[in-house]
Amino acid sequence: MSETLQTAIVGATGYSGAELARILARHPHVKPPIRLRQPNVANSGKPTKRTDGFSPAGMHDAIEGFSWSALQQADVQLLFLATPHEASRSLVPEVLARGMRAIDLSGAWRLKEASNRTVYGFHDSDPEAAAALDAQAVYGLPELHSTQIKDATLVANPGCYATSVILALAPLFASNLVDESRGVVSDSKSGVSGAGKEPTARTHFVTVSDNLSAYSLFSHRHVGEIVEQLGIETPNLTFTPHLLPIPRGILSTLYVHLKDRKTPSDIEACFRTFYQGKPWVRVFSTPNLPEIRFSLHTNYCDIGFCLDQDGRRLVLVSCLDNLVKGAAGQAVQNMNLMYGWPEEAGLQ
Amino acid sequence: MSETLQTAIVGATGYSGAELARILARHPHVKPPIRLRQPNVANSGKPTKRTDGFSPAGMHDAIEGFSWSALQQADVQLLFLATPHEASRSLVPEVLARGMRAIDLSGAWRLKEASNRTVYGFHDSDPEAAAALDAQAVYGLPELHSTQIKDATLVANPGCYATSVILALAPLFASNLVDESRGVVSDSKSGVSGAGKEPTARTHFVTVSDNLSAYSLFSHRHVGEIVEQLGIETPNLTFTPHLLPIPRGILSTLYVHLKDRKTPSDIEACFRTFYQGKPWVRVFSTPNLPEIRFSLHTNYCDIGFCLDQDGRRLVLVSCLDNLVKGAAGQAVQNMNLMYGWPEEAGLQ
Amino acid sequence: MSETLQTAIVGATGYSGAELARILARHPHVKPPIRLRQPNVANSGKPTKRTDGFSPAGMHDAIEGFSWSALQQADVQLLFLATPHEASRSLVPEVLARGMRAIDLSGAWRLKEASNRTVYGFHDSDPEAAAALDAQAVYGLPELHSTQIKDATLVANPGCYATSVILALAPLFASNLVDESRGVVSDSKSGVSGAGKEPTARTHFVTVSDNLSAYSLFSHRHVGEIVEQLGIETPNLTFTPHLLPIPRGILSTLYVHLKDRKTPSDIEACFRTFYQGKPWVRVFSTPNLPEIRFSLHTNYCDIGFCLDQDGRRLVLVSCLDNLVKGAAGQAVQNMNLMYGWPEEAGLQ
Amino acid sequence: MSETLQTAIVGATGYSGAELARILARHPHVKPPIRLRQPNVANSGKPTKRTDGFSPAGMHDAIEGFSWSALQQADVQLLFLATPHEASRSLVPEVLARGMRAIDLSGAWRLKEASNRTVYGFHDSDPEAAAALDAQAVYGLPELHSTQIKDATLVANPGCYATSVILALAPLFASNLVDESRGVVSDSKSGVSGAGKEPTARTHFVTVSDNLSAYSLFSHRHVGEIVEQLGIETPNLTFTPHLLPIPRGILSTLYVHLKDRKTPSDIEACFRTFYQGKPWVRVFSTPNLPEIRFSLHTNYCDIGFCLDQDGRRLVLVSCLDNLVKGAAGQAVQNMNLMYGWPEEAGLQ
Repeated sequence: MSETLQTAIVGATGYSGAELARILARHPHVKPPIRLRQPNVANSGKPTKRTDGFSPAGMHDAIEGFSWSALQQADVQLLFLATPHEASRSLVPEVLARGMRAIDLSGAWRLKEASNRTVYGFHDSDPEAAAALDAQAVYGLPELHSTQIKDATLVANPGCYATSVILALAPLFASNLVDESRGVVSDSKSGVSGAGKEPTARTHFVTVSDNLSAYSLFSHRHVGEIVEQLGIETPNLTFTPHLLPIPRGILSTLYVHLKDRKTPSDIEACFRTFYQGKPWVRVFSTPNLPEIRFSLHTNYCDIGFCLDQDGRRLVLVSCLDNLVKGAAGQAVQNMNLMYGWPEEAGLQ
Repeated sequence: MSETLQTAIVGATGYSGAELARILARHPHVKPPIRLRQPNVANSGKPTKRTDGFSPAGMHDAIEGFSWSALQQADVQLLFLATPHEASRSLVPEVLARGMRAIDLSGAWRLKEASNRTVYGFHDSDPEAAAALDAQAVYGLPELHSTQIKDATLVANPGCYATSVILALAPLFASNLVDESRGVVSDSKSGVSGAGKEPTARTHFVTVSDNLSAYSLFSHRHVGEIVEQLGIETPNLTFTPHLLPIPRGILSTLYVHLKDRKTPSDIEACFRTFYQGKPWVRVFSTPNLPEIRFSLHTNYCDIGFCLDQDGRRLVLVSCLDNLVKGAAGQAVQNMNLMYGWPEEAGLQ
Repeated sequence: MSETLQTAIVGATGYSGAELARILARHPHVKPPIRLRQPNVANSGKPTKRTDGFSPAGMHDAIEGFSWSALQQADVQLLFLATPHEASRSLVPEVLARGMRAIDLSGAWRLKEASNRTVYGFHDSDPEAAAALDAQAVYGLPELHSTQIKDATLVANPGCYATSVILALAPLFASNLVDESRGVVSDSKSGVSGAGKEPTARTHFVTVSDNLSAYSLFSHRHVGEIVEQLGIETPNLTFTPHLLPIPRGILSTLYVHLKDRKTPSDIEACFRTFYQGKPWVRVFSTPNLPEIRFSLHTNYCDIGFCLDQDGRRLVLVSCLDNLVKGAAGQAVQNMNLMYGWPEEAGLQ
Repeated sequence: MSETLQTAIVGATGYSGAELARILARHPHVKPPIRLRQPNVANSGKPTKRTDGFSPAGMHDAIEGFSWSALQQADVQLLFLATPHEASRSLVPEVLARGMRAIDLSGAWRLKEASNRTVYGFHDSDPEAAAALDAQAVYGLPELHSTQIKDATLVANPGCYATSVILALAPLFASNLVDESRGVVSDSKSGVSGAGKEPTARTHFVTVSDNLSAYSLFSHRHVGEIVEQLGIETPNLTFTPHLLPIPRGILSTLYVHLKDRKTPSDIEACFRTFYQGKPWVRVFSTPNLPEIRFSLHTNYCDIGFCLDQDGRRLVLVSCLDNLVKGAAGQAVQNMNLMYGWPEEAGLQ
């Protein structure tokens, strides 16, 4: 079974695409991935010269321009799209039509509710076909949807922030513990790679270093994923992202009110039961709390909590590496499920 | 009137004490401050050799050991205590008895409620006298208590986190806008100088860099100040501090529910009215938000906000430099009030 | 005499221009500076909206597009050019023709030797006039050329790296102590603001953080300034710049061989004599060495050294803030000389 | 052959020891290592509670106090010492007497010349035995001494700085290209983990961040290793280390004069020939230069260079991760040689 699957990455020059290439290069069950630029990028026909070091072990040196024939010639069976959401939105229908399975790392196919999709402003050339795919796409959070992922043709890999928030809250919502009418707050902080590789005034070293800033208040795109997955009413969730002066990592601090008094043991049991057999979530015992550094360069989502003496006010802390569990690692975890391999394969 | 006041700093080797020395050295109305170590520190009798660069302009080179005679000889009228709270608790009674006024930067004299003071675990040698001073001490937040500060003998300089939280919420509480029963959250983030100069595993560069961590959940000492100043019930406030990988600066993100629907203009008007004539608070107009870098090395507390479409959910962002508005600068602002100088003197 | 001089800054949006605006806003002898964008920049006719905080105290809020009439109306007497070298090269002739004095912060007018200027590739519209100005321009390093600067019409403010290197070596060359035939090495390291405000792949936070890189080996533009000012042969100087993961500050480590054996006292005396009465150079006594943090946000150039036991191998360490002594502060120091004010004015 | 070797790490709580534990936990040919504290450390008898996250995969949770019986019971065959040099100096004789092989990561056994060892100030209880071991110890730089390492009982793992300097210069010295009489300079910069885990004023986040400092001029302990390995005269080498505001990584910039004119192709050929078949050195083709980020978390030493037009002045840039190729990774590379495994085993 080893190294039988030929994969390809479209958008291999970005942070997520490069991380994905690194992981796949060492994965025991896949061949070295084909690495392509996203379509319609200047010079997309010529291989890219390496300018920032060395290729991941076992891979061809160059990143090639996108072409369907390259995918066909290599007999690619699974395509990872690490492309902007507009590009994913227009590429995926043909990818599936050509018989490939797809794991899309953008926000293009994550949302079931049309009202939640409006923030992306999609302009689909064939809206009916797009709607069909919206319905067919599986939200690729393996801890919640492993059964559906196994058989999926199109997996929508979750957003990095959304992963940190949903995994921290899902056990509580599943057990119906949360009094959402009192409001749920996620104060989330991310490293700069989450803002993408494009150099902007906002990602300039001098702007970011020695600084912290909040952004996209009441308007971040990941809110739609969170409310759909948790089944919370949108006005009951307040999500505030912040830009940290670190290259990678997310920490979300979450504030919830419980319907009934609980003990710390109750809460820990709720989490341990929910995540039993899930290798990529680590539950911390109170008073230990995760920190960003513990999960960097791993596929873990670490979750800890602190319960007030009254047994009602609960603060949760959730950490992950936005490029691994928040993007490339989770995509590989999805691939493992899709092909019947252990969830840990290639991720240790 | 220029340069008539002789001040002294006890604890001039710490971050706040050194910042205070820098500010006072350039203040137009005070003489160069006497700089002393805190009492009972080894070698406290010998002047310290400079090891980290140069003295602030216009000051004696060395930091001397603490002694009452040094204070008396120099005819010190105002003493700044940048000492641990235990040291402040034991020094201040004699400072006042000797006829000096005092501005204490520790947590020793900030709290009016005995129940709130228990987190400090004070062991007063004369509990009755201490209680009298607790009552007499003025909480040195100039934007709230300028009248009392003018005549105060003992000013308790607020905590850095507490300053960022109280200034962001005070106008809303003063106008009775907040539905505190739904809970108020302050998710606060501070640079490492807030953790003090003592080298510990927690302040080691390798621990802090590329990291973020939450700490002291439901148990931070600044909670008492916040609830006393705002008049909020303790269980209605959730305060979570985090350690940022930056040397200085605080950003607090605050979450409140309003009793009634408001517009952004209502909120902005509330803040502008409250802070009219207050030179060291800057109110941002929505959608602009403060960032830590805007207030670094200044005495400003910057406050911005974003109101949800429903007019009820309000997120506030408050930034300041923990060593300036959060400590030394605010102490000088208090001094300015105590001696009838403009609040801006020496702080621009 | 106070506040009589009207200055203007062309290129006030860049790091050096903004720092200059901050310093001039507090300078006791100049009016708030006019702040202009560089010519031929899009929207140059409209005032810029503030997007990153607040204006320096005492200044008009907006940065205006460049126009000669704006300069004339305000009766500007001294113009600071914080513009790219091509822009300075084309602007300065008319600035002088209109009777203004100029301090240029770019590399446009620093070099006397045509061969050294080739690295800039200037295309002068009137080469003869340009050559005349090349000859007339004074290299604005106040510690070396104060007499010429006093009467200068056009001052070429030195490069940031060049300042750190020249000030560390000038006393040794002036005393003819260096055996330059054995080679002089300057291994220099700079913070990212030295690379300018333009967002590029190289200044992206993710590229810079946790990293160090060398660049422009044997080809950096500041080499010409250094060799002209020291009178060293170009092949005898090896200068290697590096990009540090910090926002500002330069540290140069310099390696020289002495012609004759010296003691540390000899070296220290050489430096103290040379810099006597120069307020902005601080000489450290061995074994103390400067660090970048000591000179940040100051106009100091700090210099220390260590001499090998053999009395011949000398290592020097020189530190400064690239935006202050390396740019804006030094420009103000030059202005102070040009107008007969103390060199310290406005810089403390 | 897989997982047959039982190893142990003494000093597993430090940065190098922890990195070693992580690598060995995934090594295909060794069992999970026993992890011990260094001897004579308080509470050395009790297992340590984890305080900073999770154990490396496949390892026992706790780090135990040092004891000979623990080593004997587990039948440890190879001992890694990640201990201070004094501890290694006193432990190693008994380690070897008990029939174990040892790889020592400290400076205890690296130096052949007694005069070079004086910087460590060893106090050996049995000087004659120590001298015998000094002679017997093999300097564990696999690219230079693989034959000796294969059969070694005691391998002295090189210093992190020394590795970066020696690997950059060895090919040039081996080909007799260097005119060492004109002086060789290594200006080296290291991340903070190189200064160890002990919290000190020097490693405090506030001291290190936004800063750069030089230290140990003409007196760093790694000089002895470099001169012994290269055969250069001590006064011909000037080595200056600097502390970078990053957690890990070393970049050395080296300055040499060549005896005869060479072309860039000559230099590249010299390096490629020397490092042919050596998997852990990557030679860059001019004008590409290594940066610290390229080798982080890998066992590579990356080497690039730039030759002046005159063909004589050569600048080299050498990068590695001080905890991997500079410590733990190199130790595992040595182990691989000692046990006949591929040099890459467990390091990819």
